[in-house]
Amino acid sequence: MREPIPFPLDQPALDIDLGGTRVRRTVHPSGLRVLTEYMPGVRSASVGFWVGVGSRDEQSENDAARGSLGSTHFLEHLLFKGTPTRDAYAIATSFDRVGAESNAMTAKEYTCYHAKARDVDLEGAVEVLADMVTNSVLDQGEFENEREVILEELAMAADDLADVASERFFEAALGEHPLGRPIGGTPETIRAARRDDVNEHYAHQYDPSTLVVTAAGAVDHDRLVELVLRALAASGDPRWSIEADRVPVRRSASPDAGAESTAAPEAVATPHATPHVDITEKPSEQVNVIVGTTGLRAGDPRRFALGLMNSVLGGGMSSRLFQEIREKRGLAYTAYSFGASYSDAGLFGMYAGTAPQKAAEVVELARTELAKIADAGITADERERALGQIAGSSALALEDSDTRMGRLGRSELGTGELYDLDTSLERFHAVSDADVRDIAAVLHRQPATIVAVGEVSRSTLR
Amino acid sequence: MREPIPFPLDQPALDIDLGGTRVRRTVHPSGLRVLTEYMPGVRSASVGFWVGVGSRDEQSENDAARGSLGSTHFLEHLLFKGTPTRDAYAIATSFDRVGAESNAMTAKEYTCYHAKARDVDLEGAVEVLADMVTNSVLDQGEFENEREVILEELAMAADDLADVASERFFEAALGEHPLGRPIGGTPETIRAARRDDVNEHYAHQYDPSTLVVTAAGAVDHDRLVELVLRALAASGDPRWSIEADRVPVRRSASPDAGAESTAAPEAVATPHATPHVDITEKPSEQVNVIVGTTGLRAGDPRRFALGLMNSVLGGGMSSRLFQEIREKRGLAYTAYSFGASYSDAGLFGMYAGTAPQKAAEVVELARTELAKIADAGITADERERALGQIAGSSALALEDSDTRMGRLGRSELGTGELYDLDTSLERFHAVSDADVRDIAAVLHRQPATIVAVGEVSRSTLR
Repeated sequence: MREPIPFPLDQPALDIDLGGTRVRRTVHPSGLRVLTEYMPGVRSASVGFWVGVGSRDEQSENDAARGSLGSTHFLEHLLFKGTPTRDAYAIATSFDRVGAESNAMTAKEYTCYHAKARDVDLEGAVEVLADMVTNSVLDQGEFENEREVILEELAMAADDLADVASERFFEAALGEHPLGRPIGGTPETIRAARRDDVNEHYAHQYDPSTLVVTAAGAVDHDRLVELVLRALAASGDPRWSIEADRVPVRRSASPDAGAESTAAPEAVATPHATPHVDITEKPSEQVNVIVGTTGLRAGDPRRFALGLMNSVLGGGMSSRLFQEIREKRGLAYTAYSFGASYSDAGLFGMYAGTAPQKAAEVVELARTELAKIADAGITADERERALGQIAGSSALALEDSDTRMGRLGRSELGTGELYDLDTSLERFHAVSDADVRDIAAVLHRQPATIVAVGEVSRSTLR
Repeated sequence: MREPIPFPLDQPALDIDLGGTRVRRTVHPSGLRVLTEYMPGVRSASVGFWVGVGSRDEQSENDAARGSLGSTHFLEHLLFKGTPTRDAYAIATSFDRVGAESNAMTAKEYTCYHAKARDVDLEGAVEVLADMVTNSVLDQGEFENEREVILEELAMAADDLADVASERFFEAALGEHPLGRPIGGTPETIRAARRDDVNEHYAHQYDPSTLVVTAAGAVDHDRLVELVLRALAASGDPRWSIEADRVPVRRSASPDAGAESTAAPEAVATPHATPHVDITEKPSEQVNVIVGTTGLRAGDPRRFALGLMNSVLGGGMSSRLFQEIREKRGLAYTAYSFGASYSDAGLFGMYAGTAPQKAAEVVELARTELAKIADAGITADERERALGQIAGSSALALEDSDTRMGRLGRSELGTGELYDLDTSLERFHAVSDADVRDIAAVLHRQPATIVAVGEVSRSTLR
């Protein structure tokens, strides 16, 4: 069996030919990690500055100073608002004037500032991103303005019923777990946010030990390392000093703990013991439903079985959910299943948007399809199709430098090992029919969480 | 000045080295057109089967047989539902089992069935798409089921306020023009749709003279032509016969008519003489506003000036709308401007999602920014930035075979000429400051259409 590429935190250099691309990794004594994947023949590159801090790290019992809910996302916004040498307009124009795509995302376990640019424009993008991450001024005036922008962002999300359903699902399925909280906070916490709290978060969480820079495409590894180190050194702030020795931070040091454990690796327990219905009443044409439960954490060895099961259950036009809900009964336009994994917990859900009077039937159909796989497994034809779908869609996705840049970042910050395509496909092929049934059974046994958003009062759900 | 590549309807073969890629075009005596762009080093391909018929062609006065509103989109759905040799499930699995991305889009002037697959899977995708386009059975049972799916699709769109705003803008700004109608029809027309109307549409509009097949990436032109001709010949239906001689159909035979005309090419007149406010009241957090007017048709020579103007006005983080509405005042999370062009009409609009109490201010700011460009033009720095943005973002977009496949299809069906990147950039560079002011002035002079969707009753707009 092929093995994933390990990313030990104490290994200063790594250089691997992936057969087509070349992966290099540098762990600097300061704690800074730089990973690149060179793709020959490509004329552009994607670069990401990852900080291993996400919304789940806010307001932990041990560190109230990390700020109020939503402060991680608030900080992400503020990093675009200026440094001592670049104001917000200069940052915006530096990307726009070369047609680079730049953006940032705050996730539950990390924050990433990223850009995609032509090869000749990459260095400029790296310089600006490095300046943003190390030297933001978090100006009070900009802070007040950005508070309004974020409130508009939350209002926009509140008008998107599928978005609301997803947030509700996390909260309802994970209960008090920090992963259950909404990433952006709430209008209340954003109105209450103080600049000093966000600054505190920035000062305590951002330093070379939590920073990972990844790039893919037309990228020169040594040059990237040099550029990032130079930017850190130029910041002047001692917390960015590249002279200090630091241990790089990774959330879960032991990625495949479950594999070595003698106990059967169970899914994280749901916070409620019986099926739980969570309703958000909103005027709407459709009711957006998610039926699901807690799932697998990122390093769980059963994730390949889950991936195969998910492909058959709700992964495409030929999947069971699509066929049963849409193609045979016309109950929805969109129906699919999904998994989400974090260092110590995960979620699994089935989504559909449907007319209120059809909502109960859709929920029942979704649960039945999961139960059928738990009971009877999948057919040989479904298995073959799922393996083909995973191989083909992964190959297509990996043509994009964004995908490879993201894979490097998530591997480094998450499990600490990189599954290249062949290794990962080998694991999918090794999944047995019993493995698929077992993971479906684990998910089906867990008490279900049923989220419904929209005009639920008109629906058959209550 | 470089010239675009002409696509004359009577030219049987074309083979052009674009410096990096190779464009080939075949016009078969049957009327069928096949265009490819070979991208060296790429291991996948995108293929599209384009039919030069869109929602605007429904229910014209001269041809009531084309079916009711929404029948073009209804037909697009039905083409996935089965042929004599493949049922809907077989079609779905044929794409899924190789992880291909497949989909279709109904636009106002064309319909496109497309797929992206690894190079080794391309032929399979072409076979299935060709079968769908030439041999669909439009089964009555599938028709009834799909009616429900489309009603759910319309319900989903009705819950998306930005989507509703866009549809309302087309109707309000174009009035009775066939381009003003919603692509998918309405719940009423879909409930009333009859299988025979849709079949009539299929039988009368789909034949080799309206069919254009385009592909980009790892594609062999001669082989693609052979595959498509073989599929057409295999259909058995005389309307697909490749023995018959047909003249290929293109919507506008004279793409740059405006350039030769002695009259100043004006924008299409708006259907109303004074500013017009169109309100859709819906419960919401944000009001979604579009301020705009009729714009330029696809072949209008001023489109390069408009593109430059649009980039400065609302094309990125550094654009005036983003800066004035979001960065300086925190009034919105999203603010941008856009143009849409069709063979004989176009639209230009400025969009923002904002709190109800800020809606009037946002509308005023947007109109003021357009007026300022009409009055004083753009700065040299803005011009340089816009040119860089267009060059960079176009280059990045053209790395994707989807973009090139789409460019071929729209060029063939639309203006009948292909602007490669260098030619197009040369036109942008040739735009003068006066050209930019002039197009802003034309747009600003037209009576404005103001669309607002959401809880407008709470807003400052009325």
